[in-house]
Amino acid sequence: MENKVFFLVPVSAVLALFFAWYFFHQMKKESEGTISMQKIAKYVREGAMAYLKQQYKVVGIVFLIITIIFSFMAYYLKIQNPWVPFAFLTGGFFSGLAGFIGMRTATYASARTANAAQQSLNAGLRLAFRSGAVMGLVVVGLGLLDISIWFYVLQLTIASDSSMKLIIITTTTLTFGMGASTQALFARVGGGIFTKAADVGADLVGKVEEGIPEDDPRNPATIADNVGDNVGDVAGMGADLYESYCGSILSTAALGAVAFAAKGTAVQFNGVIAPMIIAAVGIILSIIGIFMVKSKEDASQKQLLSSLSRGINFSAIFIAIFSFLILKYLNIPNYLGIWGSMLAGLFGGVAIGKITEYFTSAGFKPTQRISESSKTGPATVIIAGIGTGMISTAFPVLVVGISIILSYLFASGFDFSNISMGLYGIAISAVGMLSTLGITLASDAYGPIADNAGGNAEMSGLAPEVRRRTDALDALGNTTAATGKGFAIGSAALTALALMASYLEEIKIAIARIPEKTELFFNAMQTDIHQASIPQLIEYFQINLMNPRVLVGAFIGAMSAFLFCGLTMNAVGRAAQKMVQEVRRQFREIAGIMEGKAEPDYARCVAISTKGAQKEMLLPSLLAIIIPILTGVIFGVSGVMGLLLGSVSTGFILAIFMANSGGAWDNAKKYIEEGNLGGKGSENHKAAVVGDTVGDPFKDTSGPSLNILIKLMSMVSIVMAGLTVAWSLL
Amino acid sequence: MENKVFFLVPVSAVLALFFAWYFFHQMKKESEGTISMQKIAKYVREGAMAYLKQQYKVVGIVFLIITIIFSFMAYYLKIQNPWVPFAFLTGGFFSGLAGFIGMRTATYASARTANAAQQSLNAGLRLAFRSGAVMGLVVVGLGLLDISIWFYVLQLTIASDSSMKLIIITTTTLTFGMGASTQALFARVGGGIFTKAADVGADLVGKVEEGIPEDDPRNPATIADNVGDNVGDVAGMGADLYESYCGSILSTAALGAVAFAAKGTAVQFNGVIAPMIIAAVGIILSIIGIFMVKSKEDASQKQLLSSLSRGINFSAIFIAIFSFLILKYLNIPNYLGIWGSMLAGLFGGVAIGKITEYFTSAGFKPTQRISESSKTGPATVIIAGIGTGMISTAFPVLVVGISIILSYLFASGFDFSNISMGLYGIAISAVGMLSTLGITLASDAYGPIADNAGGNAEMSGLAPEVRRRTDALDALGNTTAATGKGFAIGSAALTALALMASYLEEIKIAIARIPEKTELFFNAMQTDIHQASIPQLIEYFQINLMNPRVLVGAFIGAMSAFLFCGLTMNAVGRAAQKMVQEVRRQFREIAGIMEGKAEPDYARCVAISTKGAQKEMLLPSLLAIIIPILTGVIFGVSGVMGLLLGSVSTGFILAIFMANSGGAWDNAKKYIEEGNLGGKGSENHKAAVVGDTVGDPFKDTSGPSLNILIKLMSMVSIVMAGLTVAWSLL
Repeated sequence: MENKVFFLVPVSAVLALFFAWYFFHQMKKESEGTISMQKIAKYVREGAMAYLKQQYKVVGIVFLIITIIFSFMAYYLKIQNPWVPFAFLTGGFFSGLAGFIGMRTATYASARTANAAQQSLNAGLRLAFRSGAVMGLVVVGLGLLDISIWFYVLQLTIASDSSMKLIIITTTTLTFGMGASTQALFARVGGGIFTKAADVGADLVGKVEEGIPEDDPRNPATIADNVGDNVGDVAGMGADLYESYCGSILSTAALGAVAFAAKGTAVQFNGVIAPMIIAAVGIILSIIGIFMVKSKEDASQKQLLSSLSRGINFSAIFIAIFSFLILKYLNIPNYLGIWGSMLAGLFGGVAIGKITEYFTSAGFKPTQRISESSKTGPATVIIAGIGTGMISTAFPVLVVGISIILSYLFASGFDFSNISMGLYGIAISAVGMLSTLGITLASDAYGPIADNAGGNAEMSGLAPEVRRRTDALDALGNTTAATGKGFAIGSAALTALALMASYLEEIKIAIARIPEKTELFFNAMQTDIHQASIPQLIEYFQINLMNPRVLVGAFIGAMSAFLFCGLTMNAVGRAAQKMVQEVRRQFREIAGIMEGKAEPDYARCVAISTKGAQKEMLLPSLLAIIIPILTGVIFGVSGVMGLLLGSVSTGFILAIFMANSGGAWDNAKKYIEEGNLGGKGSENHKAAVVGDTVGDPFKDTSGPSLNILIKLMSMVSIVMAGLTVAWSLL
Repeated sequence: MENKVFFLVPVSAVLALFFAWYFFHQMKKESEGTISMQKIAKYVREGAMAYLKQQYKVVGIVFLIITIIFSFMAYYLKIQNPWVPFAFLTGGFFSGLAGFIGMRTATYASARTANAAQQSLNAGLRLAFRSGAVMGLVVVGLGLLDISIWFYVLQLTIASDSSMKLIIITTTTLTFGMGASTQALFARVGGGIFTKAADVGADLVGKVEEGIPEDDPRNPATIADNVGDNVGDVAGMGADLYESYCGSILSTAALGAVAFAAKGTAVQFNGVIAPMIIAAVGIILSIIGIFMVKSKEDASQKQLLSSLSRGINFSAIFIAIFSFLILKYLNIPNYLGIWGSMLAGLFGGVAIGKITEYFTSAGFKPTQRISESSKTGPATVIIAGIGTGMISTAFPVLVVGISIILSYLFASGFDFSNISMGLYGIAISAVGMLSTLGITLASDAYGPIADNAGGNAEMSGLAPEVRRRTDALDALGNTTAATGKGFAIGSAALTALALMASYLEEIKIAIARIPEKTELFFNAMQTDIHQASIPQLIEYFQINLMNPRVLVGAFIGAMSAFLFCGLTMNAVGRAAQKMVQEVRRQFREIAGIMEGKAEPDYARCVAISTKGAQKEMLLPSLLAIIIPILTGVIFGVSGVMGLLLGSVSTGFILAIFMANSGGAWDNAKKYIEEGNLGGKGSENHKAAVVGDTVGDPFKDTSGPSLNILIKLMSMVSIVMAGLTVAWSLL
């Protein structure tokens, strides 16, 4: 190792995993409450495990097939990096593992949280939040562990002393991101379809047709709904953020290897590990922050909120300060500018969070106006929600635009032609946002736990006070989670742009692997491919806006985002319809169900969601892999670059639109349920429920999957660079 | 004139206007029916005129302000082309005039069509179709007239013999496109908001709440609804297609001037007038085609359809053949390849039409599935409609992608580096699609006339047979209009791409106007700016995908499309809510309204729609002008190019999504009304009506406006090129 400080990375990873284990065991020691509570928790746990088993089986087959193809391309055709099959597998494995552990924890924690909430709000918060922290820490711990191991192994095995060594290492480790992204997309799409089919089904028949409350045990879909929270919101989110976290670090490392290649291997090494060290320090700060979240036993909700915010703000502020010290200590050239890039990212993330809150919280005009529109029926609720969601995209786009320009300019020393430094700046600004993921994810993941605790309390017939407390916990989480979501969205766009640059690096390596292509390049550009600059690659491949391949690529990229959303929306619609029919059937055929005398067939609803999700997740997920490959083979490098620009820009905007429309509908409905505009049961409420139901797949299936989609398409392009160079037609 | 054949252009323009006048007078000679029919027609006519007067007043002020700004920039700052203020004004004037005449004709024709339909289906068709043809011919006639006059005047006044002369002329005429686009956007947005506010308002209270049929005279919003059809569907569409038609011809001429600059002025001249000659021949073929639409007096609906198709197909097939002869006669270099480009465009347009039909007609699975989803309520109808609409974007994008690549390759002789010929190919493929606009627009514009005739029949209490006949006419129009719509959508995307290339040409002229900039360019590229090639401009301005200004521009462009849609959606929502409240108030407060004893206050509803539309249309329309200017000033040329790519790709896809979702919801509802799934009045029908209501602003306000938006943003960029070059910050 060029710099011993690197070992901070595996150490902090192990530390994260240790504390995850510690919090898990602490939680397990608590009582799971009454027999009825235990029984319901067991139902949910078993349903979730059954789903995940099925999910991993299907995804396992997909991984097997892709690994065989990669091996064939690497060892037989020799047009691919030979490490790819292994990197792909570990990325997928760890991403899945992070989701799995998070979900296991959540299913153990929900009944315990309900039980603790009987005691006090604070007890409930502690238990739920620390259980959420298990997932936060597992994600960052496994992420940095995987990165450390690969980095260390490749350091030992790749024999070279030149600056090429780190470039090859970092672009190779980058490919494990494809495994993580693939796993994450399946988890998000499958889990998203499962949870929303159950949710929509439960709501449409239970709430709208039969008029029984949410989580009523008489509703056959209620267990499936709670299972869905776990497999969609917890397991899906875990895999998703594992991918984001690793993606941002790896792409920064890869761009660092290029940006500092000419400054000597010591400087280059430091540039590569800088994002990892920042992430490592972020872990330590997250752990401290998690311990800061506690309050007096009789704390009010406001005090709890400030305690929660204290932990998150502490980590965010200190990572900003420590990053400066880290960059200075590592003696990164222009460390002040690069620190500026990071700050631009951090401020951008905070701003996106605030904007999201403005557009989706019932405390502000936009959501209130959606509530108002319920006076004229469901159609105007839908129109207002779609309109508001579309308008809301403008501000995050401007924020991200400013972040991109500032982080590029700061890092490049205000010189647009200093491309590799500028791109490093864009990449590291995403690392800044995700470095404290340990704690921000904790505050995101504990929401579903509190939600499930509420479900358990309702079904077990605990006092209404308990449900009110778990609802308060859930609401608390929504407020603090806004910043985390802003970071997740903003970093996705920035990382995806960084991956476009990494793609060009990978293209260089792919050309170098094929002697004829190397010669062609040399003849055209009079430069050895290893020494080729980004402007030379741009010229050689005509990666400009007057190249029809770029234009068509951009159209296809933008269309991919829409196609993907359409497929996932329809998947939820179809699965939900089956659920509705099943729930109606049970209400009709099982005698005594409405009187609470007969137990509904919960398992059958779980099975319907499972089957629907497994069947429906394949096509959209596979398209995300196939489209970049085909585009590369047909349109070549310039087509792929256009594709990535189109998918990143449109995908990013579509994701915000869907997330915000969905969030606003949800809260517009809650606003009415709080007693405004006629309250629960009024015609206005019914109209708002239609909005909320449409918003379910918007905000929990299609929207969040898009963030993964845009990165997976970049990752696939990177991994398939060899194929594109070898075979492209046009 | 280098080639006397040019005079075919003004001659055919005058011919088109003559036949428009002829058809108008023939229509006026027919009887307007009973006193009651005349009264209703008068109401509608007056409402429409009142609206248009108000609309032109507002738009007039906007035009005045913009013209003053242009004059200031041209004559005081001297950074702009001095012809721009005049060109801008005539473009706006003629575009508005085309819409105005079309609407006048439609409001005179509707009662007469109802009256003729009493006699026979064929009589109704003849009258409605020839009235639609008035608009078709006025649009193409005024378009070519405006182009001829400008072209002729500039030929006389610009003193130069070099190849620069035609480049300057064509880029100058191009700027009148901005006037046409601005007028068109206001017409589409204002008219779209008007019509949908009235439609949604009339449906929600009349159909859903009170259970009275469409166009029932007891419904206070029914006149406003019929006025809306005229100001939105007729006047809006007229201005829209005027802009598309001229835009495609002018951008092709501008690219032709560049592509053939090195081949001598005679060849260059022919390359420039080729699209005009094709359009001129298209006019003559359209007129013949219009006369071919007639049938025996007792014709069945099928016979009428085949008669309608015969006229359209005749024009399309013969323009394909004649184009070859024209290109060969003009001796255009590689005329066979360029003809191939045109055919690629034509086939693309036909394919998009067929795809649209598949996804939106109740005869096929996708729309039937949306109908089916009504069994589980309005929420699943919305989810299914959005999902289907999003999926449907994939195929038109692939078709346009293939058209782009093929037309580029054919025209460039399969050489990607032959950029200017390739771009000429892309541009002329759009001309092919729109050359027979005279007849395709006739078959599009007669739909609203038939629709209004039905409204008049209903309100005047004519026999149900008459309504059935007008409905049949409307359905007939929908089938044949699909191809026309495919052409309109496809040509918008292709023209917008061509305008990106024209933008770069305009940038050259803008640089040449400022001595320091000319010198800077020469020092950097060692080429005189007049001789600069597209690759040199790309290099100089770094118009590549790794330039952060391009990336940010693309994000902003994609976001603009969403923002624009969101604003127009919300505008319709707000205006519709006001309408609903007014209609409810009238039902409540005017005694005897439901028994037909008291007349509702129609005028008040018209006034609400008018006020709503005027107030709401300003912001989105002005944004379309301001965003490209600000992007240019802040991010410079590369930022604008990114902006245009982002807005064209995302805007195009969003437009298809919205049009197809809206169309599918509409037909899913009609499918149920035909007696399927429980028929009219069932719960399923109510759910489908919610979908249809949401779809109204999708397909008639936001969706069609997007096609104009993407071209207006290009036009503004072109016109403001001088400002961008002189002042850009980054």
